[in-house]
Amino acid sequence: MVGGGEGAFIGAVHRWAARLDGEIQLVCGAFSRDPENTARTGASLGLNADRCYADYVEMMRAEAALPADERMEFVAIVTPNHVHFPVAKAALEAGFHVLSDKPATLNVAEAKALRDIVSENPHLAYGLTHTYLGYPLVGEARRIIEAGGIGKVRKVFVEYIQGWLATELENKQADWRTDPAKSGGSGCMGDIGTHAHNLAEFMTRKKITHVAADLTTFVDGRRLDDDGSALFRMEDGVKGTLSASQICVGKENTLSIRIYGETGGLEWHQEEPNTLLRTYADKPTEILRAGQGYLSEGAQAGFRTPPGHPEGYLEAFANVYREFAQALRNEGAVATGIDGAVRGMAFVDALLESSANNSEWTEIKT
Amino acid sequence: MVGGGEGAFIGAVHRWAARLDGEIQLVCGAFSRDPENTARTGASLGLNADRCYADYVEMMRAEAALPADERMEFVAIVTPNHVHFPVAKAALEAGFHVLSDKPATLNVAEAKALRDIVSENPHLAYGLTHTYLGYPLVGEARRIIEAGGIGKVRKVFVEYIQGWLATELENKQADWRTDPAKSGGSGCMGDIGTHAHNLAEFMTRKKITHVAADLTTFVDGRRLDDDGSALFRMEDGVKGTLSASQICVGKENTLSIRIYGETGGLEWHQEEPNTLLRTYADKPTEILRAGQGYLSEGAQAGFRTPPGHPEGYLEAFANVYREFAQALRNEGAVATGIDGAVRGMAFVDALLESSANNSEWTEIKT
Amino acid sequence: MVGGGEGAFIGAVHRWAARLDGEIQLVCGAFSRDPENTARTGASLGLNADRCYADYVEMMRAEAALPADERMEFVAIVTPNHVHFPVAKAALEAGFHVLSDKPATLNVAEAKALRDIVSENPHLAYGLTHTYLGYPLVGEARRIIEAGGIGKVRKVFVEYIQGWLATELENKQADWRTDPAKSGGSGCMGDIGTHAHNLAEFMTRKKITHVAADLTTFVDGRRLDDDGSALFRMEDGVKGTLSASQICVGKENTLSIRIYGETGGLEWHQEEPNTLLRTYADKPTEILRAGQGYLSEGAQAGFRTPPGHPEGYLEAFANVYREFAQALRNEGAVATGIDGAVRGMAFVDALLESSANNSEWTEIKT
Amino acid sequence: MVGGGEGAFIGAVHRWAARLDGEIQLVCGAFSRDPENTARTGASLGLNADRCYADYVEMMRAEAALPADERMEFVAIVTPNHVHFPVAKAALEAGFHVLSDKPATLNVAEAKALRDIVSENPHLAYGLTHTYLGYPLVGEARRIIEAGGIGKVRKVFVEYIQGWLATELENKQADWRTDPAKSGGSGCMGDIGTHAHNLAEFMTRKKITHVAADLTTFVDGRRLDDDGSALFRMEDGVKGTLSASQICVGKENTLSIRIYGETGGLEWHQEEPNTLLRTYADKPTEILRAGQGYLSEGAQAGFRTPPGHPEGYLEAFANVYREFAQALRNEGAVATGIDGAVRGMAFVDALLESSANNSEWTEIKT
Repeated sequence: MVGGGEGAFIGAVHRWAARLDGEIQLVCGAFSRDPENTARTGASLGLNADRCYADYVEMMRAEAALPADERMEFVAIVTPNHVHFPVAKAALEAGFHVLSDKPATLNVAEAKALRDIVSENPHLAYGLTHTYLGYPLVGEARRIIEAGGIGKVRKVFVEYIQGWLATELENKQADWRTDPAKSGGSGCMGDIGTHAHNLAEFMTRKKITHVAADLTTFVDGRRLDDDGSALFRMEDGVKGTLSASQICVGKENTLSIRIYGETGGLEWHQEEPNTLLRTYADKPTEILRAGQGYLSEGAQAGFRTPPGHPEGYLEAFANVYREFAQALRNEGAVATGIDGAVRGMAFVDALLESSANNSEWTEIKT
Repeated sequence: MVGGGEGAFIGAVHRWAARLDGEIQLVCGAFSRDPENTARTGASLGLNADRCYADYVEMMRAEAALPADERMEFVAIVTPNHVHFPVAKAALEAGFHVLSDKPATLNVAEAKALRDIVSENPHLAYGLTHTYLGYPLVGEARRIIEAGGIGKVRKVFVEYIQGWLATELENKQADWRTDPAKSGGSGCMGDIGTHAHNLAEFMTRKKITHVAADLTTFVDGRRLDDDGSALFRMEDGVKGTLSASQICVGKENTLSIRIYGETGGLEWHQEEPNTLLRTYADKPTEILRAGQGYLSEGAQAGFRTPPGHPEGYLEAFANVYREFAQALRNEGAVATGIDGAVRGMAFVDALLESSANNSEWTEIKT
Repeated sequence: MVGGGEGAFIGAVHRWAARLDGEIQLVCGAFSRDPENTARTGASLGLNADRCYADYVEMMRAEAALPADERMEFVAIVTPNHVHFPVAKAALEAGFHVLSDKPATLNVAEAKALRDIVSENPHLAYGLTHTYLGYPLVGEARRIIEAGGIGKVRKVFVEYIQGWLATELENKQADWRTDPAKSGGSGCMGDIGTHAHNLAEFMTRKKITHVAADLTTFVDGRRLDDDGSALFRMEDGVKGTLSASQICVGKENTLSIRIYGETGGLEWHQEEPNTLLRTYADKPTEILRAGQGYLSEGAQAGFRTPPGHPEGYLEAFANVYREFAQALRNEGAVATGIDGAVRGMAFVDALLESSANNSEWTEIKT
Repeated sequence: MVGGGEGAFIGAVHRWAARLDGEIQLVCGAFSRDPENTARTGASLGLNADRCYADYVEMMRAEAALPADERMEFVAIVTPNHVHFPVAKAALEAGFHVLSDKPATLNVAEAKALRDIVSENPHLAYGLTHTYLGYPLVGEARRIIEAGGIGKVRKVFVEYIQGWLATELENKQADWRTDPAKSGGSGCMGDIGTHAHNLAEFMTRKKITHVAADLTTFVDGRRLDDDGSALFRMEDGVKGTLSASQICVGKENTLSIRIYGETGGLEWHQEEPNTLLRTYADKPTEILRAGQGYLSEGAQAGFRTPPGHPEGYLEAFANVYREFAQALRNEGAVATGIDGAVRGMAFVDALLESSANNSEWTEIKT
């Protein structure tokens, strides 16, 4: 693991997720640029001191030098955004698989550079932890749509709104997220808008081709967008809207998507992730529930307990890790790989370009 | 009443609404272009046959000729859209107040023509039945915002989605709504998008100044938009999105609005109209409920029963009628008068223009 | 109308309900024991002074003396509980149909006395306004159960909880409801527990035969129960629980019922009356919605607007009035007639007896 | 760990829960009476074969013989009910702490026998995994009540309903739960009614003293109750109802509790565990959400992620494990210890006795 020292948020989440199913073991880390933080973090996680490294360069070098059955198998990248790229690049070049937090990189050029490395090294796996794809009912929605369950898709509403950046906030989490050098050209859209984009494309299996966006910075003095909305167009005539905002006071983590096709619709809300609403033209709306026997096998496999025992964010994240482990065993593909990584960065670039050009329709170029 | 013969929908609703509080009495009508329909409708409503008129022209003439204490006081217009204007014009010119179903007219030119008449005849009241403004919690939201309850408004999400036109539909209601000659230049936006526009402006007391819209006709052979989304900008830097759609399969009448300011937020959904959610930065979200003593007097006045006895669409409509009756007694103003009527039509025009110009930002000109 | 003068609550509700569909006209009244209140109320309702009577005795006498086509057809009783019986008796004996607010009488003996009169005068209609049976989805639930839609019924949970009497309250509504002389032997159970009983029997078509009850007076100084729960047994082995309470702080008017049979279940909540949940063993729960085309004709007939336009308490009440009007035209039966009236009073008696006998199982004797 | 071999449900849940926070390591087990199952289970969990024991007797003996820093610290019991007691007894007598699945034993006599052992060995910890107490908002409700947040408690509604045993079911989970020899004298009440009892006493800090119960076996041929409801009385005049049922078709795992005091109320539902509703007499109902800064420190400590990232059953279970680990380090007490274990069994005994005696009020004797 690179990143995730004391004071970090997402590193701990990755560790919970990796640990849950007992398939993955943390064996080494470069948790912080502060060696003492790294040492304390490693000790608290039960690592040997000699596998707590000063930095990721040292980690790649030292681990690669270990015997194959002792060295780490893959690197989990849980740093702020601007460090994702150099670590991923170094890991791949040292021959390690990579599971990176999102967004993949600071910009689309970096993402394409990673893609080049991965495409030249097909034995290396690259995964991006778009956590929300790990919810079993998200996959179920995708399967229903693929099976024609709502007919040809017409319209998608997707949004991801939060309130925690509604005022100027002084903490570690907020700080780097609003710093262009660490977070990239976009704040809110890079941080959470990419999840909305990823979710919409995953469920529908359609790519967003064009966006017309209006990004805003509502909080005085902030250097990046903290809010934005976009009209979008997907392949095959699908249309939609996407909003992401971190200034919606009182909202927690409201990622939601609604998809309407010619014969039905689907609605899913991350804050109540074990429910999927399915609408029909002439029949009552159905409440699909995680874990139920009437779901597909795939959805059932992603739920650990009987229906009515809520599973949440950590279980979804664990599913992403489990899926990555399966991919390493050649038992399947990751939901978001290097192509998804590039798409996410290109999406953000297109939003920024459109917003700068008076919301002009802008193509997403990958 | 003009319109509202057998087979019509909204006429009956107007009659229920007018009747509920016992303040308004139906005295005459031109219910249909079919004289037999008019006769049957009038008879079933207990009207004398001599006050069931062949057409609105005849009605205006005959009623105006009656003694002041016998003739009708105002005309309720409940026809398809294209007839709104000529009837309203005739009524106003004959000296009768007008309460019209929306949208006010077929286009902004007609609306402005009505505005001219009204401004020259300040003793005449003109009201537009934007029903949803009649819900007591809609007014409460407006009062909370006016009182600074959510701070300076930043972002508005408003939408109105239905599913009943997801396929080609053969019935009287659908027919004229998708016929440009009867419905105006827009289908879905004129029919329900105007409600969303009206609601957003009413709650925030801010005007939408510009829109960037993408209107769509999803159903083959339909001549007007059945779906559309727009980015918008309001006065004072407020931004937002507005969607209206009639192809969202399985949705009934989902008008909802969420407004976020610097210090709080409000959420209201028409299908659960007796609940208003109020969000805060550092406190639990509150569930405000219609009829409760902690609401403003205005909100309490709009609810007839104790809390927990659901009131709905007809009561909201009755509130619009009651408010119009109060306006006739000089006890207050209507929520949506002639200026709102013009604004609604100008909003639709701007959407159509923007959508035709590749979603270019377009000013709403009133 | 007897009762319903200024300051009363339920009288106004009856008038709204009667007025909504335009089938029923208020022609006379004895609204209050205070003649001035009666006069003011009558005047505000547009009645002639000579049909505003000093008391119900005078009203029966005078109306009976009018020509058949001028006199009132039926009497609506909207007084406090203790006056229900003498007015109903007088009206029936004077040959007028009766539509009474509930509970029918102060005790079961009075209810049986009314039953005797009605059974001797089969041309006279007696209806009890159990409002909640007027919601279209309540009737739909009954039809689904009758059609075997949930299999043989096993278990019923019904409750009706409010919070408005959680503290000693000084107002007209609370006063008579907590006075044994005016309200009968039970407070909460007579006032709202009877609705729960009525609803459970209506939906299931099974009679509650025995109760084991524990009634409580939580507020110091109150003379009647303000809370109670009971186990119950119905015909055919159905079991259930019933709670009614007026001390559940913050609850408005939470009448809810859940019924489970061998193959499915149904859930309905009065505060969201346009939704009926239907559960299955092996299929997703369905959200049935008022007004939808997939409902039975009966349920559709009870809804005035298209789906998604909320209808509420007044519309349900209007349905009860409409049903009574149909019964007068011999077009159907009332949902709750004299037998239901007796059953309701016998239910309350059994609760009181059981609670007095240490919650002993007690038969409901009708 | 004793129990939890292949084909078992709750053992895997215990392992996920124990693993999540990285504080607890599985070191040995007697997973099944089938040695091959034990061997396979142990291998799949990465245990050495020599610490996969043939039975719990052998495990206690062998582990006790290991050096103190190598042997297991405590025993997790995840067998069917009838094995809880002998394993717990053996473990305690061998000097090991015990964390047992519930119900603690087959009957109250066994529970009291365990209590004797624990009281004679105060250095030994005994914990019962009443999972639902691990949800942070359950603890928050308890703290609010303790702080007087709803005033003196008056009324409690608690229920736990499921549908999975609505028909005769042939599987391992259902089998032992409906076998008196393995499950104890009660089926549904022992399995899930005890959770409801435990939750009500935990939140209110009041003990249920008497019950009047009506237990039922709805499914033909089943030997134990699959449904039951009870009136209950708590200390200090609190009254309530408790229902548990496994024949409510379509219900998943609906444990819910509502508590009303003199000045407010609280409502919590296990299937949406991150929300706690708080009602007031004169203020809007509040939606308290897990993880929020306005909660007590205790509630915040029980939530691992930021608000809006759902946590669920496994995290609640992990909190129970974490709390047990803290108790072993003398950093706090377990939520449900040996006294709670005895109370649970005495509660079931009282229900059975009351139901056998025509629902007579029956004291819970601990």
